[in-house]
Amino acid sequence: MPAANNSVTAIRWQDDHLQLLDQRQLPEYEIYLSFTRAHELADAIRSMIVRGAPAIGITAAYGIALAALRKQDTSDWNQALKGDFEGLAASRPTAVNLFWALQRMRERLHWLIGEGADGATIAQQLVQEAINIHKEDIAANLAMGELGANLIESNSQVYTHCNAGALATGGYGTALGVIRSAHKQGKVKQVYAGETRPWLQGARLTAWELMQDKVPVTLSCEGAAGQLLNQGNISWIIIGADRITANGDVANKVGSYNLAVLGKYHNVKLMVVAPSSTFDLSLEDGADIPIEQRPISEVTHHQGKNLAPENCLAINPSFDVTPAKLVDVIITEKGIIEQPTKEKVLAVLTN
Amino acid sequence: MPAANNSVTAIRWQDDHLQLLDQRQLPEYEIYLSFTRAHELADAIRSMIVRGAPAIGITAAYGIALAALRKQDTSDWNQALKGDFEGLAASRPTAVNLFWALQRMRERLHWLIGEGADGATIAQQLVQEAINIHKEDIAANLAMGELGANLIESNSQVYTHCNAGALATGGYGTALGVIRSAHKQGKVKQVYAGETRPWLQGARLTAWELMQDKVPVTLSCEGAAGQLLNQGNISWIIIGADRITANGDVANKVGSYNLAVLGKYHNVKLMVVAPSSTFDLSLEDGADIPIEQRPISEVTHHQGKNLAPENCLAINPSFDVTPAKLVDVIITEKGIIEQPTKEKVLAVLTN
Repeated sequence: MPAANNSVTAIRWQDDHLQLLDQRQLPEYEIYLSFTRAHELADAIRSMIVRGAPAIGITAAYGIALAALRKQDTSDWNQALKGDFEGLAASRPTAVNLFWALQRMRERLHWLIGEGADGATIAQQLVQEAINIHKEDIAANLAMGELGANLIESNSQVYTHCNAGALATGGYGTALGVIRSAHKQGKVKQVYAGETRPWLQGARLTAWELMQDKVPVTLSCEGAAGQLLNQGNISWIIIGADRITANGDVANKVGSYNLAVLGKYHNVKLMVVAPSSTFDLSLEDGADIPIEQRPISEVTHHQGKNLAPENCLAINPSFDVTPAKLVDVIITEKGIIEQPTKEKVLAVLTN
Repeated sequence: MPAANNSVTAIRWQDDHLQLLDQRQLPEYEIYLSFTRAHELADAIRSMIVRGAPAIGITAAYGIALAALRKQDTSDWNQALKGDFEGLAASRPTAVNLFWALQRMRERLHWLIGEGADGATIAQQLVQEAINIHKEDIAANLAMGELGANLIESNSQVYTHCNAGALATGGYGTALGVIRSAHKQGKVKQVYAGETRPWLQGARLTAWELMQDKVPVTLSCEGAAGQLLNQGNISWIIIGADRITANGDVANKVGSYNLAVLGKYHNVKLMVVAPSSTFDLSLEDGADIPIEQRPISEVTHHQGKNLAPENCLAINPSFDVTPAKLVDVIITEKGIIEQPTKEKVLAVLTN
């Protein structure tokens, strides 16, 4: 089981099953649930037991590994795993890491079939591939942490949104990885975490993660972000990403675009931290990214109780798109992309 | 008891006591609480049983009226009501309507003392003054509704924040008064209501009010405002105000400033609707407005349950300040102020 420094581990591979920290129940309960089947993991992704673009990619890879372990006597691997690939791919639409991880598992499977590997070998090799994806994600986060921390000034206050931490990744985190690394270097005086309605990832997950690591964190409603930025004490807005298109447009948790506009207005820089698996070079720009619309009950209810009148209409887009022109820098494990353009994105990603 | 058309009434004067609709319990329970003493009303304002700048001014005026009814045998009116005035003035700091209403009651008291009125007359006249303040607020809202609606184009979609409706005023509402009037004229196709964390005035109060009046309303998390405005279908952001300074700077519910910046970025106009009692000409600009910091438990908890880790730090500024340069128009009952400046504010208010 890979582990990243001391940060919390949301995803634990246990030889014949996968354990996921149930993120719906944090911070009140810290409960790991066990899974042995791909369709259970598709449900876990859909219901946000696990969330965060890199984390759902890793989980999907382990889902294929689990399916392969159960089906190692098959005579037709493509047919045997077809439903597992499709079910996992249908779990959530926006984060591209999911499709990237499934594609990587599919390519590994095809290579193993082409090599004439036997069933047990194929299953074990697919398990190993999922573990590799997991390990590489942690390594990417540690690398991005260093690259991003180099850009943070001493004595900084930073603002983050949603949870792009250990819980959203294989470990360590993307945006929170940079914050962790900068904090270790003594550069981070204060982290403001936007609570991130409706799911409250900032309040429930980011505050919890950072408090465990003794990183000074203060929670803020999203409505207070403007005046915080206007006070002039925050030097960076640091967020993760769910999909980045060829031109550098960034899909991320709803509310990120607000912060990008507010940052531009107040001359506070925006840093996006995401591994290369978050890039979708098949899309020219963000207009083509499918934005997941989640159940409106996430907005109108909390733990089954009404927050709004019965039958109130609501919108609940789970993501938004920030155009590249509002992004100051994208940090990837392959290098940094300042003022992103298509040319710069391609140059770094094909490094 | 004054009433404004058919909209809900949050404040009911009942000859010898005041009834307030308990806004903490909406939309689940519709309960009126009765009050006979000024200090109880100060507590009701502090705990947000009643909220909204005009509504707390009216409530404070009734508080003085109730105190006068109880103390009509006093030989020293100033001394008798001193604690009531002070207690009510200390209930909340930002909305200036509170201080305006108390000042008006004080001036009426002093005039009655100067006239040599007897105790019963003074008490009855102070009751009448509070009723007048209440009636005038409704009349101002109806007038502003017409003035504001004139600026709304046919087939409009508008965005509002917090609750500046019947519940926040003597009746009819400021921002929602304009929306009500425009809707009656067939101009409003859709109202987006920002849910307004942490107290959820948009979800709990605005959606409830508008659904009762059959005005089409759709709830949105504040994080989704940017992409809504970016879609190009919203023509106005319409909000109330808690205090407007001489130069046209506007203090309003936290999150208003975010919307003002987002509106400017997307060329969506910002309309602020507030009666003349909301203006504080003693302040040059918004930097001097005291911003209430409310308990952080409003952010970290919901109905006693944790939303964030135990002992999590948070900020909870209840208001923010939008500079006049981001305001397209202020609607008052005395006239409209486009692109507000000190000269224009003074010209309209001294009309």
